[in-house]
Amino acid sequence: MHHTSHKVEIIFIVLAIFALWNAASNFFSVKRVLIGRPMRTSELNAQKNKLIWFIALPILSADLYSSVAYGPEAGMTELAGLGPSAKWLIVPITFSTIFLLIILILSYIMGILAYPNGGGSYAIAKDNFKEKWVALLASSSLLVDYILTVSVSVSAAVEAVSSAYPVVAPFETILAILCIVILLVINLRGVAESAKIFAWPTIGFMTCMLVLVFTGLLNESHLGFVQKNTPPFGSIPKGLSNLLLLKAFSSACSALTGIETISNSVPVFRDPKPKSAIKTYIALGIITSITLIGFGYHLYVQGISPNVHNTMLSQLAAIYFGHGIFYQIIIWFTFLVLVLAANSTFTGFSQLAAIVAEDGFLPRALTHRGDRLGYSNGIIVLASTASILIITFHAHTNALIPLYAIGVFLSFTIAQIGLVKRWKREKGPHWKTKLMINAVGALVTSAVAFIFGVTKFTSGAWIVLLIIPILIFLSLKVYRHYEEVTNELKIDIHTIHPEESQVISLVLVSGVHHLVNTTLSFAKGISDHPIAIYVGFDDQSIERMEAEWKEWGSPCRLVTIKSRYRSVLQPLTRFLRLIEEKKPDQAQVQVIIPQFISKKWWHNLLHNHMALFLRVWLMRNKNIIITMVPYHLKQ
Amino acid sequence: MHHTSHKVEIIFIVLAIFALWNAASNFFSVKRVLIGRPMRTSELNAQKNKLIWFIALPILSADLYSSVAYGPEAGMTELAGLGPSAKWLIVPITFSTIFLLIILILSYIMGILAYPNGGGSYAIAKDNFKEKWVALLASSSLLVDYILTVSVSVSAAVEAVSSAYPVVAPFETILAILCIVILLVINLRGVAESAKIFAWPTIGFMTCMLVLVFTGLLNESHLGFVQKNTPPFGSIPKGLSNLLLLKAFSSACSALTGIETISNSVPVFRDPKPKSAIKTYIALGIITSITLIGFGYHLYVQGISPNVHNTMLSQLAAIYFGHGIFYQIIIWFTFLVLVLAANSTFTGFSQLAAIVAEDGFLPRALTHRGDRLGYSNGIIVLASTASILIITFHAHTNALIPLYAIGVFLSFTIAQIGLVKRWKREKGPHWKTKLMINAVGALVTSAVAFIFGVTKFTSGAWIVLLIIPILIFLSLKVYRHYEEVTNELKIDIHTIHPEESQVISLVLVSGVHHLVNTTLSFAKGISDHPIAIYVGFDDQSIERMEAEWKEWGSPCRLVTIKSRYRSVLQPLTRFLRLIEEKKPDQAQVQVIIPQFISKKWWHNLLHNHMALFLRVWLMRNKNIIITMVPYHLKQ
Repeated sequence: MHHTSHKVEIIFIVLAIFALWNAASNFFSVKRVLIGRPMRTSELNAQKNKLIWFIALPILSADLYSSVAYGPEAGMTELAGLGPSAKWLIVPITFSTIFLLIILILSYIMGILAYPNGGGSYAIAKDNFKEKWVALLASSSLLVDYILTVSVSVSAAVEAVSSAYPVVAPFETILAILCIVILLVINLRGVAESAKIFAWPTIGFMTCMLVLVFTGLLNESHLGFVQKNTPPFGSIPKGLSNLLLLKAFSSACSALTGIETISNSVPVFRDPKPKSAIKTYIALGIITSITLIGFGYHLYVQGISPNVHNTMLSQLAAIYFGHGIFYQIIIWFTFLVLVLAANSTFTGFSQLAAIVAEDGFLPRALTHRGDRLGYSNGIIVLASTASILIITFHAHTNALIPLYAIGVFLSFTIAQIGLVKRWKREKGPHWKTKLMINAVGALVTSAVAFIFGVTKFTSGAWIVLLIIPILIFLSLKVYRHYEEVTNELKIDIHTIHPEESQVISLVLVSGVHHLVNTTLSFAKGISDHPIAIYVGFDDQSIERMEAEWKEWGSPCRLVTIKSRYRSVLQPLTRFLRLIEEKKPDQAQVQVIIPQFISKKWWHNLLHNHMALFLRVWLMRNKNIIITMVPYHLKQ
Repeated sequence: MHHTSHKVEIIFIVLAIFALWNAASNFFSVKRVLIGRPMRTSELNAQKNKLIWFIALPILSADLYSSVAYGPEAGMTELAGLGPSAKWLIVPITFSTIFLLIILILSYIMGILAYPNGGGSYAIAKDNFKEKWVALLASSSLLVDYILTVSVSVSAAVEAVSSAYPVVAPFETILAILCIVILLVINLRGVAESAKIFAWPTIGFMTCMLVLVFTGLLNESHLGFVQKNTPPFGSIPKGLSNLLLLKAFSSACSALTGIETISNSVPVFRDPKPKSAIKTYIALGIITSITLIGFGYHLYVQGISPNVHNTMLSQLAAIYFGHGIFYQIIIWFTFLVLVLAANSTFTGFSQLAAIVAEDGFLPRALTHRGDRLGYSNGIIVLASTASILIITFHAHTNALIPLYAIGVFLSFTIAQIGLVKRWKREKGPHWKTKLMINAVGALVTSAVAFIFGVTKFTSGAWIVLLIIPILIFLSLKVYRHYEEVTNELKIDIHTIHPEESQVISLVLVSGVHHLVNTTLSFAKGISDHPIAIYVGFDDQSIERMEAEWKEWGSPCRLVTIKSRYRSVLQPLTRFLRLIEEKKPDQAQVQVIIPQFISKKWWHNLLHNHMALFLRVWLMRNKNIIITMVPYHLKQ
């Protein structure tokens, strides 16, 4: 009991430290060490920071290819209740998944041909639908989906390791947060460098999977395609309904999430971008198909059933290789590839958020590139929200795996319909074939999205279907706010010019000392008749101040105010209201506040923060100009 | 497991909300409702807010009298290992406790006679010792002790209830925090009003205890003074050592903590203050002695042993009254009186902290009286630190009970020695008797403090003995800082006068719009030659800005700076360094920053906080005057 609480406290502390660090770290060298030297904007388009297609392949495909590890299993889990006679269904389900994969890849290649400068579902929807909400539906679905991907992938990765090594089980949440922090730092360093770090593990996992498939083939060529555990083929199991089959199919389709990453990331490729992207798509399609067919068929031949404590991948690997070194390698590459799936999402999320923010639908801060040219704010937003999800669910987010496919397939559908509209409008070479491909794509993806929404509604899909409209609504409100502010600030450049204002300058004084002297020197420099204001809590202090002022030779007019309630703010605001009522219409009121700046942080505790407090309150509640005169304490 | 984490999270959230509320709530009506209308400083000395002695008695004695509930038990627990033949020792131990009580009360009455305007150990030490650290030793011991008292009393109160009703056991921490929040609100309302709320429960507990003692006497007059469970008297148990006896005695002395409250609180009494305070001391001494003798003797007659799950008080009450309604009443009054012990500490802590802060040894903020004339900051500091202790120890702080007596007895000793020095110096009527009383007091309390420190050193006393010197050290550093700042700020009023400064005014502009227009109007009002500064991230934006500026008729000189690293701060500071190098020695540099003020809090997310960020950085790192021109967005 105590242990868990401490764990949560540690997480809170770590997050708090990190938040503070991020908020104010621009000037600490730790940031330089972790993030690297700042980069010039002109380095953005340098070819050397762009990706060659066969390095982009492993980086951008981690999200899709890692799903191979759980997609077929998710499908078979739905049919587990029907007994061994349903096991053969993995073969047709895998084939229909691959069929869907091919349709999707073809559709996305059409997308790249139509938008060679890159553009995911959002850009396509924006270009082809007049209604703003359609594009926002695409972007909101994807953004929600990206957040879910990070939490789910990282949690799954940590769980994979903790199933192999139960000793780390109590630290799952902390480890998952640690993974996210590492991903955060790496992504703040920038995309090109991540490439070099991240290409190899995915290549490793791909190799593992291909070795596994090849080993299976060898095994079957020696022992035959029907082995002692191979279930019967083609029998219709009792209790099989169309709904159940659809559920199994849609769950298996979760293996296809992440396919949009390449098309969203066209700008990160080396020239010629569209051709590189298409090459990557084709290569990825071939590798994924081979893996899926081989993996699915070997699962059938060995008659493997889904098991909560032992993944089907782990079971198959154990049959071929035992629990030796190669089994360990597969487990660790599964871990790495799931973490990389989360990583590819960082680029995707921050770029999409920046594009949508550029259009005024999200806070503009998301368009700012950080020191290392990544969209730092988007990267930080993703890391934080994913961390909150992980903490809330204590890193047990597997239940969410099937859910996040809804968002993806919704955005797939919008993109396909948008492309159909485009081909119809723009025509061009082979437009009818292209239109046909995208029409089929739209049909299939909308069917899958619909099946997902219906079959998973009660088990959590409703959350996603609730959050997406809320996000669309908020995006539209953000857009309206920016539009209104722009209109409010607009001036006619030819008729309105800055006229010299009459400025009434008030100086808050707390006695006669060095800081007041400096502040009055400044006030006299900018105003002919500054007025000093002193707020006292009793008659004695006011009399003392007036006497001292006189002795000082009355450097300017002094107004003393007695505060019977020991508050500076209330008498001051009453006085300011009086001045505002009497001043000419065009005159501006300026309050000059002297402020100590302590040398050591703990000295801040020793000084009155009236200056700070007054500034915040006056800025928020009054139309008054605030000037702070700093005095840096030597002690 | 999940449950606990949520509990901790809830506490964090509650604390965070509370902290925010406190920081910024001056202007929300919720504070008015909870705390009440603000009071004038002149209401401070009104007699109607002062306490009559017999109302002060229950309020100021809750701390001491509540210890009766656990003092004898704490002593007997030390001897539990010796078996039934040690049970009779409760009688001599109780008598020696009462002997100590009488000596302490006499010494404190001497203290009031010497310092009729009130003054606890700190005031006495300050007046009689030249060395600052002696007074600080007294104040630090007491302040640490007050914090421990609040956490221990509140935790014990909650545990009392949760032993009677196990259903609340999982919520102990939250309930303890809730108690502290309630005490906090009540104390922020002010001391006189707390009086009316808090007098009755203590009176109730006293009545309960006296009824219990009287019932015991009746019981013994019927059934005899030797009953079936009465252990033998006077036998020396095997294994009894002097060290063990000292340990038992010192633990029993924890019943005497809180005795200093009355002498520290003389100013809250109605006139004549010293006489009222002395009356209260005598009455309290009589009631406490009767209770302790009766309670201790009945425990012996009934042969009750200490039991972790059932207090000796609860056992004795159950023998006389069964588990019926009167037993329930005793349990609940025990709860209330322990909470009240915490309450009397709030007044004590905040007043002592204010006195020490007035002398410059603690942050001055502790001397500020809040709206309701209580020392709000001290009250808030006490509530927060006690809450942190409770959260850290999950409301299981009983182990700390014997520890906090060290601080008290240390400060007792210092006060007694101080008084001895004073009688020797000042003489006056009966000075030799008074000196004798305080000399005996000093001897006894120093012996108890020494016994505590030695016998409890390994079980936690070392923490207290470590923290107190640290506090003394910090207090001396605080004092030095205030002294140095005062010297640094001091000016010769006859030779130094504010001379009109030459001011260089720079205006940050981000384009040509309404806010820039207002800001430039102001700048022209205070400066003949303001300079506008524009920081652009690329050549296009700079060219566009320059063209627009020209079209606007160049209202003042415009300097454009290109930032290759997308940062405004770095090129700006480079530019400022240039200006600082070239400016005349006496000239001051002013940066004028226009700032949006959003209407709704969430709109803050949509705007760039460059203005805020720049202000914080420049204030902290440069000797530059910052002016903020607010623009309140209508949307």
